[in-house]
Amino acid sequence: MSTVLVAVTGWEPDAWARQLTKQLPGHTILQTDIEGAFPGSVNTLGGVDYLLAWKPKPELLERLSGLKVIFSLGAGVDHILGVDKLPDAPVARIVDPDLTARMSEYVAWQALHHLRLGPAYAQLQAGRQWEELRQPAASEVTAGLLGLGVLGQDAAAVLRRIGFRTIGWSRTQKQIESMECFHGGEGLDDFLSRTDILVALLPLTPATENILDAGLIAKLRKNGPLGGPVLINAGRGGSQVDSDIADALCEGTLAGASLDVFSQEPLPADSRIWDAPNLVITPHVAAVSSPRALSVQIAEQIKAFEAGQPLKNLVDRERGY
Amino acid sequence: MSTVLVAVTGWEPDAWARQLTKQLPGHTILQTDIEGAFPGSVNTLGGVDYLLAWKPKPELLERLSGLKVIFSLGAGVDHILGVDKLPDAPVARIVDPDLTARMSEYVAWQALHHLRLGPAYAQLQAGRQWEELRQPAASEVTAGLLGLGVLGQDAAAVLRRIGFRTIGWSRTQKQIESMECFHGGEGLDDFLSRTDILVALLPLTPATENILDAGLIAKLRKNGPLGGPVLINAGRGGSQVDSDIADALCEGTLAGASLDVFSQEPLPADSRIWDAPNLVITPHVAAVSSPRALSVQIAEQIKAFEAGQPLKNLVDRERGY
Repeated sequence: MSTVLVAVTGWEPDAWARQLTKQLPGHTILQTDIEGAFPGSVNTLGGVDYLLAWKPKPELLERLSGLKVIFSLGAGVDHILGVDKLPDAPVARIVDPDLTARMSEYVAWQALHHLRLGPAYAQLQAGRQWEELRQPAASEVTAGLLGLGVLGQDAAAVLRRIGFRTIGWSRTQKQIESMECFHGGEGLDDFLSRTDILVALLPLTPATENILDAGLIAKLRKNGPLGGPVLINAGRGGSQVDSDIADALCEGTLAGASLDVFSQEPLPADSRIWDAPNLVITPHVAAVSSPRALSVQIAEQIKAFEAGQPLKNLVDRERGY
Repeated sequence: MSTVLVAVTGWEPDAWARQLTKQLPGHTILQTDIEGAFPGSVNTLGGVDYLLAWKPKPELLERLSGLKVIFSLGAGVDHILGVDKLPDAPVARIVDPDLTARMSEYVAWQALHHLRLGPAYAQLQAGRQWEELRQPAASEVTAGLLGLGVLGQDAAAVLRRIGFRTIGWSRTQKQIESMECFHGGEGLDDFLSRTDILVALLPLTPATENILDAGLIAKLRKNGPLGGPVLINAGRGGSQVDSDIADALCEGTLAGASLDVFSQEPLPADSRIWDAPNLVITPHVAAVSSPRALSVQIAEQIKAFEAGQPLKNLVDRERGY
């Protein structure tokens, strides 16, 4: 039987190993400690067939000489493609209904929070003030999905059911039912100029690094029903310029924002963005993979692969996602 | 041509009158002032055919001797049925897609806010703390709709699309697709014992007065994935015992609550409920009727009625909704 290594940095590995032992009886399950270091004999590593990885250590990777498949334990794969000495095995991304649903929960929650003036009402409540504020209906507000992968498309569908208008942008052209789509560099400005709530669900690649900056924010629709545009980033912190977003919130160029990711994580306690107005900060929890839900799916992929079937959701290393 | 009276207490009447003048050319449109008093000659009132009412004054109602239809300018009708000297004309309730959508926005927003630990993350953010909390998926959480009218059914459908499990309770038996329904006094305890997030969308009647009290809260599911039950009331303040809810939040019997309505409104600044933990207070804005959206619909009803067609959404005065 084959050997599986769970290599997770900063993430409790026991739950993963426990679930995989249950799902893959007879397979050998190895695991790193929570720092990502391997406690066993390094000689064992040459016999590893499958790697389940979250921010794996390079010194570990270079020893995996017999590796057949790398499974990323998150929707993004920049934490894997970015490391040195990545073995030349196919990388499969997680596309899990549980993870997708959790991301859509987060996007719907934050879009509604800004639509329904959550930050302003919280302030009124703190001052024991009973005061009705003007709030548009979702049907007057356009949510623009920047990134139309599995996550972006599902979030758009949920937002539409709630009543929002939706439009989308992707690098290459896509046709999606009930949704106007823009693409490429030439489509981006049109897309932004019609967007009231920008929902960024982009992979981190050289093309998307720092894309959410002052220049992009300035192109969002200004005279919309929310009194200004709102930015929600639940993709990658490397796509955003934290200080530009803080400035835009302070100056009122952005009416609000929700950030689940940051260029540096954990967000340092002395970052000035903590205090920006109308900003909701969450600690990279928009779509936390549950070991129980994901291990079932990875185990199925491993069994299918061993039965000679093709791998699903493979990553294009060149493209970066 | 006929005469329409807009009688609204505590609500700016001009927007209504302006919209109706546009929608019903040739009709005479009369209006009260914002205090609900009629500034014109009271003799005119005998000629009023249609009343559009929000908390109308009894002294006005008794003069409407020629009244043909009363339209309630909100989803609830207790503000009309409760007044003395109500003329013996049919009462029609507002069932407006805009109003329904706004209520579902509010319910989805608050259900997500508690699911995703909004109050706890806001506290962490205020303290500049980066800390991941355990949050269940919506698919692990059961939202129980107390009240299955148009609003309750639409809110349930939106919650299901987001991923929540939904169950419902109504006074009389209902069959609703994809949703287990309970009914009557005998079904209530079973319903409550399976509910993690209780969404109250009940009309205010003698049977629902003070129904949301300590006794009912004690019957909600205790060992659910949110660490305790959550209460969302977007129906009527008269259905709830404010002090019981404040106690339950302070003692932890309730893990959270969102209240849009209160037994006394505006909620007095010295009410102790303002400070209860994990509570979101909004000032009766869950589903604010927009004069523009609603006047179109009422004008259509008036034209249809004058063309001999039956009235829609009539209220049963005996039943109270």
